[in-house]
Amino acid sequence: MRIAVIGLGLIGGSLLRALAAAGHEVTGFDADPATRELARAAGHRILDSAPEAVDGTEVAAIAVPLPHLPRVLADLAGYRGLVTDVTSVKGPVRALADEHGVPRFVGGHPMAGTAASGFAAADPDLFRGAIWVLCVEPHSTDLADWLTLARLFTALGTRVVPITADEHDDAVARISHVPHLLAAALTSTLAGAPLSATLAAGSFRDGTRVAGTRAELIAAMCAGNAPAVHRELDAVIADLIRLRDDLTDTAPTAKILPYLEKSTKLRQSWPPTPGAPGRMTADADALLALGRSGGWVTSVDGTELSTMRPETDRFSS
Amino acid sequence: MRIAVIGLGLIGGSLLRALAAAGHEVTGFDADPATRELARAAGHRILDSAPEAVDGTEVAAIAVPLPHLPRVLADLAGYRGLVTDVTSVKGPVRALADEHGVPRFVGGHPMAGTAASGFAAADPDLFRGAIWVLCVEPHSTDLADWLTLARLFTALGTRVVPITADEHDDAVARISHVPHLLAAALTSTLAGAPLSATLAAGSFRDGTRVAGTRAELIAAMCAGNAPAVHRELDAVIADLIRLRDDLTDTAPTAKILPYLEKSTKLRQSWPPTPGAPGRMTADADALLALGRSGGWVTSVDGTELSTMRPETDRFSS
Repeated sequence: MRIAVIGLGLIGGSLLRALAAAGHEVTGFDADPATRELARAAGHRILDSAPEAVDGTEVAAIAVPLPHLPRVLADLAGYRGLVTDVTSVKGPVRALADEHGVPRFVGGHPMAGTAASGFAAADPDLFRGAIWVLCVEPHSTDLADWLTLARLFTALGTRVVPITADEHDDAVARISHVPHLLAAALTSTLAGAPLSATLAAGSFRDGTRVAGTRAELIAAMCAGNAPAVHRELDAVIADLIRLRDDLTDTAPTAKILPYLEKSTKLRQSWPPTPGAPGRMTADADALLALGRSGGWVTSVDGTELSTMRPETDRFSS
Repeated sequence: MRIAVIGLGLIGGSLLRALAAAGHEVTGFDADPATRELARAAGHRILDSAPEAVDGTEVAAIAVPLPHLPRVLADLAGYRGLVTDVTSVKGPVRALADEHGVPRFVGGHPMAGTAASGFAAADPDLFRGAIWVLCVEPHSTDLADWLTLARLFTALGTRVVPITADEHDDAVARISHVPHLLAAALTSTLAGAPLSATLAAGSFRDGTRVAGTRAELIAAMCAGNAPAVHRELDAVIADLIRLRDDLTDTAPTAKILPYLEKSTKLRQSWPPTPGAPGRMTADADALLALGRSGGWVTSVDGTELSTMRPETDRFSS
């Protein structure tokens, strides 16, 4: 296929390299001239503007941070190909795509490591084995477009998870954004507490690790998903308030034990192990049922999909 | 010295072996006959009751879980030597020692790994480099007794931190007990959420790791330190409520950024690096000032101590 990648940082650069390695005809653009030079020196066809890069392509993957997305979507006004993105929040991006009247849009979110950054760290194998969320909206997603991207990304070795933008945003609030805020709050207990800093060990180290992330990144990702983060954080706070109050009981051990027994069992069951492989014919409802059960697509053959579901149903309450 | 160790699990067994290896005359006892046999087979002098084990010793180190401590203290009624313990909560143990009229008591808390358990896992080098908190109470701790234990434990390669029982309990609530409850609450968000379980990755894994600990252990340690855990958890909840409410601001990024900038800087400064070594003459106030600044004792020579303080004062607010 002819594919353009706009934004050539770690994710965009890795995608450009992975798609090129898979034999696609790939073009790229980055707003930073030095990044364009790096990508050109690596042998890629890099244009000097987004419209030139997408010209004549069937798919445009936008791999820029959320704040830059409106500008790129404006640059691509008039593009008639299939547009996707890689940002970590999907509801706001869908709203932006609607606002800009993008004719064919399917939102995506590859969940791949981001410790390094920039094109210099780009790795064609970055996505192998990684989850790649591809949004399905029951009444608006064009299934053929969805399948085009699912085929493209599963062929790179990813596990494609079909889910609505809102359900995605709730899930990442829970499993990524709220953990960053808990880590920040836990770290903050060390302010003015040098004794605690000296005594802190394993449980503190792990519970606060992501608090060392750049503050601007944490703020941007939480604020960019504010309604879902608010809701999920509120649920965690409610549990913590209950645990705090249970500690004032005359028999606190017995009072907090049932809650801890449940969470210990959940943690010991995670990560879920893959179950037996399955097959299904693609339609929006079946795809969403797969995603909601924690399953994913491993390959696409026309409208026939190979799938995988987690073995345990422990998380299905 | 002649030293008895009562309770021969991982900590007690390791202490028995470390003290024996350091040339002390060590006796031991464990309530479990099979454990006694194991320790005897390893060449140690193991008696069949706690009173027999402590008979004629200068120091008795009690290394049993908190719920078993009253029974052991009752067994040792009449013992006139110096008694210490290794449990992770110090205020309640001090109260128990007072209740049982223990004539000479200095509470301790070695902060060494506990992934394995039982005498079979005992390791004479377990404490090398580890923190060993030894409680100092301004008006009641006998300084000579404190120095006896500090000399004993620093000679095993530990870093001895002098602090009051209450300050110790606040600190461990903050750096260990509250982290366990946050991990449990974070894990609980996966109940009924198989999609989230599939998407969860690094930040969730680290933030919830200790939630896989046995629920009985988490419940016992939090309940055993309930007032401090309540207070520290309350402070964390207050921060989380503020962050949650800030997310409803019209400009949430700017609103939450200052808090995150502080926590990121704190996390990046942790763990504190040791500064220059120092010397001091032991007295209760000087010891407490050392502990409160995050410092520790590295060796004891009469009443002259070699000490170390953290290099940074970032945690001193």
